[in-house]
Amino acid sequence: MTSDNGTNGYTNGSHARERTPLRPGIYSPTMTFFDPETEEVDIPTVKKHAVRLAEAGLVGLVTMGSNGEAVHLSRSEKTAITRATREALDDAGYKDVPVIVGASEQGIRLTIELCNESAAAGGEYVLLVPPSYYRYAMDEEAIYEYYTKVADSSPLPVILYNYPGAVAGIDMDSDLIIKLAKHPNIVGTKFTCGNTGKLTRVALATNAVTPKSTGSGYMAFGGMADFTAQTAASGGSGIIAGGANVIPKTCVKVWNLWAEGKYDEALALQKVLSKGDWVLTKAAIPGTKSAIQSYFGYGGYPRRPLKRLSKEKTDAVAEGIREVLEVEKSL
Amino acid sequence: MTSDNGTNGYTNGSHARERTPLRPGIYSPTMTFFDPETEEVDIPTVKKHAVRLAEAGLVGLVTMGSNGEAVHLSRSEKTAITRATREALDDAGYKDVPVIVGASEQGIRLTIELCNESAAAGGEYVLLVPPSYYRYAMDEEAIYEYYTKVADSSPLPVILYNYPGAVAGIDMDSDLIIKLAKHPNIVGTKFTCGNTGKLTRVALATNAVTPKSTGSGYMAFGGMADFTAQTAASGGSGIIAGGANVIPKTCVKVWNLWAEGKYDEALALQKVLSKGDWVLTKAAIPGTKSAIQSYFGYGGYPRRPLKRLSKEKTDAVAEGIREVLEVEKSL
Amino acid sequence: MTSDNGTNGYTNGSHARERTPLRPGIYSPTMTFFDPETEEVDIPTVKKHAVRLAEAGLVGLVTMGSNGEAVHLSRSEKTAITRATREALDDAGYKDVPVIVGASEQGIRLTIELCNESAAAGGEYVLLVPPSYYRYAMDEEAIYEYYTKVADSSPLPVILYNYPGAVAGIDMDSDLIIKLAKHPNIVGTKFTCGNTGKLTRVALATNAVTPKSTGSGYMAFGGMADFTAQTAASGGSGIIAGGANVIPKTCVKVWNLWAEGKYDEALALQKVLSKGDWVLTKAAIPGTKSAIQSYFGYGGYPRRPLKRLSKEKTDAVAEGIREVLEVEKSL
Amino acid sequence: MTSDNGTNGYTNGSHARERTPLRPGIYSPTMTFFDPETEEVDIPTVKKHAVRLAEAGLVGLVTMGSNGEAVHLSRSEKTAITRATREALDDAGYKDVPVIVGASEQGIRLTIELCNESAAAGGEYVLLVPPSYYRYAMDEEAIYEYYTKVADSSPLPVILYNYPGAVAGIDMDSDLIIKLAKHPNIVGTKFTCGNTGKLTRVALATNAVTPKSTGSGYMAFGGMADFTAQTAASGGSGIIAGGANVIPKTCVKVWNLWAEGKYDEALALQKVLSKGDWVLTKAAIPGTKSAIQSYFGYGGYPRRPLKRLSKEKTDAVAEGIREVLEVEKSL
Repeated sequence: MTSDNGTNGYTNGSHARERTPLRPGIYSPTMTFFDPETEEVDIPTVKKHAVRLAEAGLVGLVTMGSNGEAVHLSRSEKTAITRATREALDDAGYKDVPVIVGASEQGIRLTIELCNESAAAGGEYVLLVPPSYYRYAMDEEAIYEYYTKVADSSPLPVILYNYPGAVAGIDMDSDLIIKLAKHPNIVGTKFTCGNTGKLTRVALATNAVTPKSTGSGYMAFGGMADFTAQTAASGGSGIIAGGANVIPKTCVKVWNLWAEGKYDEALALQKVLSKGDWVLTKAAIPGTKSAIQSYFGYGGYPRRPLKRLSKEKTDAVAEGIREVLEVEKSL
Repeated sequence: MTSDNGTNGYTNGSHARERTPLRPGIYSPTMTFFDPETEEVDIPTVKKHAVRLAEAGLVGLVTMGSNGEAVHLSRSEKTAITRATREALDDAGYKDVPVIVGASEQGIRLTIELCNESAAAGGEYVLLVPPSYYRYAMDEEAIYEYYTKVADSSPLPVILYNYPGAVAGIDMDSDLIIKLAKHPNIVGTKFTCGNTGKLTRVALATNAVTPKSTGSGYMAFGGMADFTAQTAASGGSGIIAGGANVIPKTCVKVWNLWAEGKYDEALALQKVLSKGDWVLTKAAIPGTKSAIQSYFGYGGYPRRPLKRLSKEKTDAVAEGIREVLEVEKSL
Repeated sequence: MTSDNGTNGYTNGSHARERTPLRPGIYSPTMTFFDPETEEVDIPTVKKHAVRLAEAGLVGLVTMGSNGEAVHLSRSEKTAITRATREALDDAGYKDVPVIVGASEQGIRLTIELCNESAAAGGEYVLLVPPSYYRYAMDEEAIYEYYTKVADSSPLPVILYNYPGAVAGIDMDSDLIIKLAKHPNIVGTKFTCGNTGKLTRVALATNAVTPKSTGSGYMAFGGMADFTAQTAASGGSGIIAGGANVIPKTCVKVWNLWAEGKYDEALALQKVLSKGDWVLTKAAIPGTKSAIQSYFGYGGYPRRPLKRLSKEKTDAVAEGIREVLEVEKSL
Repeated sequence: MTSDNGTNGYTNGSHARERTPLRPGIYSPTMTFFDPETEEVDIPTVKKHAVRLAEAGLVGLVTMGSNGEAVHLSRSEKTAITRATREALDDAGYKDVPVIVGASEQGIRLTIELCNESAAAGGEYVLLVPPSYYRYAMDEEAIYEYYTKVADSSPLPVILYNYPGAVAGIDMDSDLIIKLAKHPNIVGTKFTCGNTGKLTRVALATNAVTPKSTGSGYMAFGGMADFTAQTAASGGSGIIAGGANVIPKTCVKVWNLWAEGKYDEALALQKVLSKGDWVLTKAAIPGTKSAIQSYFGYGGYPRRPLKRLSKEKTDAVAEGIREVLEVEKSL
């Protein structure tokens, strides 16, 4: 658990810039945008997107997440995108919106190396899935060693990322997460498993940040927009929501309604959000990009071998989110 | 979706007894109890347990669920247990507490056969996982055919059971569930996946029962006690909770607090419930039985090859649920 | 391991009929045939099929395997099919062709019950996958207890069935199988995993039957026709091959060529067999039935929810096996 | 399929050095060795090991495979190891022993980049698993696009690597592999799935290299030592065997006996090999290293979070392979 000064984690080494605290609210794992012909990274669009999300009320951005196609990017591209995101936020006056960086590698040394690069690029926190290539060897002991050794050396505080679908089914339970959360440089968990009971236990055990309390500073993040209010209800600290790339204001609105104690209103809007977000989740990265393209005029395609949606599928995604987009545009 | 008369499903064939409606609230998949020496079914304990749960406020019981070790029981044992449960409830004055029966088989004909036997034994609804033995063949089309053909012929209305862990990972999504819910004899879904976003979408699309509204009569059940309040928050209709075998009153209390609009109190108690229920979930059937034994003086062991807990493990389970048991005993 | 009298297993209890030994060679898990309209079991076709396979040179048949759609059949149907198969073999003069019966249930008691029913119906051996419904609980210790307790009480000797695809991925390794094989009433393993290294180790450790030696009597069966010669090469005892429902003589020919020391000829024919058998494997039960229909004039369809092949798919299957069928017809 | 000049693949671009053909026989995915204290790469030991394997009769080495802990290594470390391996082989006079390099990345661009780096470091072929991070998106079409686009641009011919255990269960079937094999720059497949029927079909369809024929030049590799003779029997071209890091001469001996037509002798020795190799497979990377340490005086440990074996486990591994090591030492 973190120190009680509310800064979400102590400092490994000295930093000229003081770490920006993680506030309760909505975060987004930002998409990475590419030139549709060359598949080169499109930095201006990356910047524009970051600013749009901050303007919509997001309190933090995550670069190099699954949605950001980190696994399709070279080291230098990763650095460039994180740096550009930080710069865009600073230039637009969002110095209080921290950048969290996905920095997972299969080994301890490589992950630490990437944590250092993430710090150099302007990241303030890292988000890490457990290793899974040697799946048979990744028992609780190995996962514990991985995270604690990385956290010992990472210049950036670590957020655990529980996402079974991306790591051959590894699903860390609340006992393991609570044990890991005792490390002073592990400051949060993202629950993409969708398990709100688990999130409840971890939030309780870590005295996590809530809209009403800074608690210990530990962040218990829901991992998808479709259970935003449920995360808040579970004592959670915020959401890192792929859907917030498309409908950030709706996510923020649900969260804020709950934070203001307007539970029924929050839950009513959650229904619309759960319905729309599912269309994006089912259409995955290609569909999230096509949705941005349809409604905001940029977005493009993922890098191959991820596919491009057909015209028909693109239209179906646009149609499927029409209702929530009307809400979004009204906010 | 069901007819709007609030009786949760139309009637296939004629029934002397009118079907008991499914009310919002807490249900339990009841354990099956055995003689510790012979492993014979212990009917008196089955009956005693049923009555204890009804007295605690449960509004329905599920026999032949995973917790009930249905897969360890012969046809005649299944019938005997469902019949005994029904009789015990009737004798104790709980005629309004319906019995739902797990009746899953791998094929359509066999499942219908078991639905008929369940009806004859006093069951009023059936709870069905999709077939999974021929996993490669169980695409959405096959699952759709399975459920609709069974529902066409079953004398008892069908509740879909989404439990990926028991069916080789098959995880029905909201699109499929909503499509299936249109069948007049499919009247609910149990979400053991824990996916509250999915539950939200299904509850919305089916106009599900909530504490405040009978809606269409469709039941959207959370599948575990550790997200009871979150299910209510998601527009759900109730919980079918293994943990309610041990701590039924706490589950009921959380649900009722929410139903009364005391959201903060419900969520505060949910924390205690999520913490205690996890101990039971992790210790599974042997541990749930040992917990009942430790605190209520009966329970015993599962049938083999499920194992019996060591003394040390039994004590750890008892200790792990001490806090929630203090709540339970106080209610 | 079994006694060295070559009868593959000692006798639990007394039997009027002496147990027919399991000979090296080709076995088939027989399809179950149904009326295409009513889906009722078609006993005459079951009988005709059994005789065709025996005439083709198979040395044993397996009823109630995965191919036999055991999970789609009631207890009385299972009994009827096993009994009919035994009768048909006897009537046609194949008293030396034993019937092995699939008798897997999730619990020890139920499995033993089914072993008894299998014996009463004329089965001489049982073939058993490990339980997998409570997947989380099925560690090596539980699997070991399951098999040994069943073997202690089963009137029929037990053949272990290692088929990860049907049991939620449980893949017994050679250490566990070799340990289990020490039980006097466990007399063989069917390797549907296709792991010939594992089969080699088990055959070696158990001194398994080979074409040249009765060894200890233990049977190490390959589980598919597409590695028939490789199984023989690995010191295996025979094949239980779904493909042998369609192309039994080709399987027998490959086996016999190897047994006669004509390795190169066996391996050359194996190529044709591997190619044709894959078409059947990929098309699964519906395709195997359609292949029998196309070339032998009976076969029909599986029970639902397994699907029926389209005309186009049926033709593709027939075309895909044309080459191996020419071989088959020439033998 | 490759051109029929027997050089295993055409040339993308020009090369000063002519590509060394892939000969039938035994290959090894070499371990990467580290300083036990610092975990820095130990280049002298990498070199010594490569030479030992070549002296033992291996006809090719694979760097950056799973056994080589590629996922634990930085780009510069990967290059250094491949380069050192090439140099060591050249210096010791094994210019005809080519180096194959594992070069898998999740995206097409990154993989091509790594193929280029592999070529620059002296690699002559690349070995590639399909992407699996976005598991849901990796259908046959995506896998086909991945491999063909990579093969279009890679300066090194591509060997498909079918290893379900490392890629979230993706198991390419023979139809897909045969389709991919038509690409002129795809020149082989490694079957770590152990499916000899599949290997038979692919070898047949591609007219693969065998001990007796150069065929089309396509290489069908068994992926483990424990089915070496079975691979040869299936018409395969060789083995890429982790176990060959420890017992290379035994693997070579089995292969050569088969190649010389001494089938029975090959199969007899295969039994010993299957038994010993399993001990190494079960003990995985830490155990393979401990075995080298026990018998050859070097080996050390993997990088964390892979574990180090206890003394007791180390001894058990050494004991478990004693029989095959006696064979190895006698050769």
